[in-house]
Amino acid sequence: MNKTTFAHGQLKSIVERIERLEEEKKVIAGDIKEVYAEAKANGFDTKILRKVISLRKKDAAEREEEESMLDVYLAALGMIPGAGEEAA
Amino acid sequence: MNKTTFAHGQLKSIVERIERLEEEKKVIAGDIKEVYAEAKANGFDTKILRKVISLRKKDAAEREEEESMLDVYLAALGMIPGAGEEAA
Amino acid sequence: MNKTTFAHGQLKSIVERIERLEEEKKVIAGDIKEVYAEAKANGFDTKILRKVISLRKKDAAEREEEESMLDVYLAALGMIPGAGEEAA
Amino acid sequence: MNKTTFAHGQLKSIVERIERLEEEKKVIAGDIKEVYAEAKANGFDTKILRKVISLRKKDAAEREEEESMLDVYLAALGMIPGAGEEAA
Repeated sequence: MNKTTFAHGQLKSIVERIERLEEEKKVIAGDIKEVYAEAKANGFDTKILRKVISLRKKDAAEREEEESMLDVYLAALGMIPGAGEEAA
Repeated sequence: MNKTTFAHGQLKSIVERIERLEEEKKVIAGDIKEVYAEAKANGFDTKILRKVISLRKKDAAEREEEESMLDVYLAALGMIPGAGEEAA
Repeated sequence: MNKTTFAHGQLKSIVERIERLEEEKKVIAGDIKEVYAEAKANGFDTKILRKVISLRKKDAAEREEEESMLDVYLAALGMIPGAGEEAA
Repeated sequence: MNKTTFAHGQLKSIVERIERLEEEKKVIAGDIKEVYAEAKANGFDTKILRKVISLRKKDAAEREEEESMLDVYLAALGMIPGAGEEAA
């Protein structure tokens, strides 16, 4: 059975610590949103920006391997003009 | 090394099956959205409706246990009027 | 057409600011996870804890209104023992 | 004030329709998961497969524009070997 008799103070401190951290997280999420808005206002494409940021989480070798495998699949499906006939 | 030489037809059939299923899933998601819209138009509170539907996934005993434990925690935090002083 | 000629430094600074903020956000998400793990180790039910925290984002009146409306719906569906026959 | 006096049957029918549709959606989600598992068992890279499927939702022109803009951004950040020095 889960704990139902406990030092109320313990629960209160846990709840308040989580709430403080969630508040901090919310502030940072807001800051991120602001930077994207600033980028957009400066003519950057935020969708491409997000892709760049997610690509930067991978090292160059990983990016290249994924890129080349993607090309193999796209070519097999005839989605790369001139890269061979579509899968029968 | 992942497969990069393969019967193109195999890839095509896998992709097309997934696309068909995703399309079906999208249609049903649309149907669900329509029912909620209909409920709203008929005066139902869709937030409460979603809660009811999620509660119905649990059996009565589970619901009751969760409810009573939640009350213990809320009382310990002084969130139930008259249920004892707040956690020091 | 979206901006493709730009001061590279501007893009770099935007990307690095977002990456720094995302890193901070990830650290805080980790801290939150740790507090929940600590709570669990101390016998608290983390599912109930999450409910408590989400309820604390609402004021008492809002909580009470939702609670009473939920009871009306549950009773109408015969999900509250002794609260009247199920919806025909 | 939201509706709390209503034909119980109406609520019941709405709830049951949503539950039926959610069940159907769950079955299809399971089918999709199975196809990905089958693809994996046949040596396909499911991460690349998901990318292919998301790319196929865009037409060729859209894909090309995104690809070329992404390259501009990556080059500006020095992430494309030999495509010009990194952003100062």
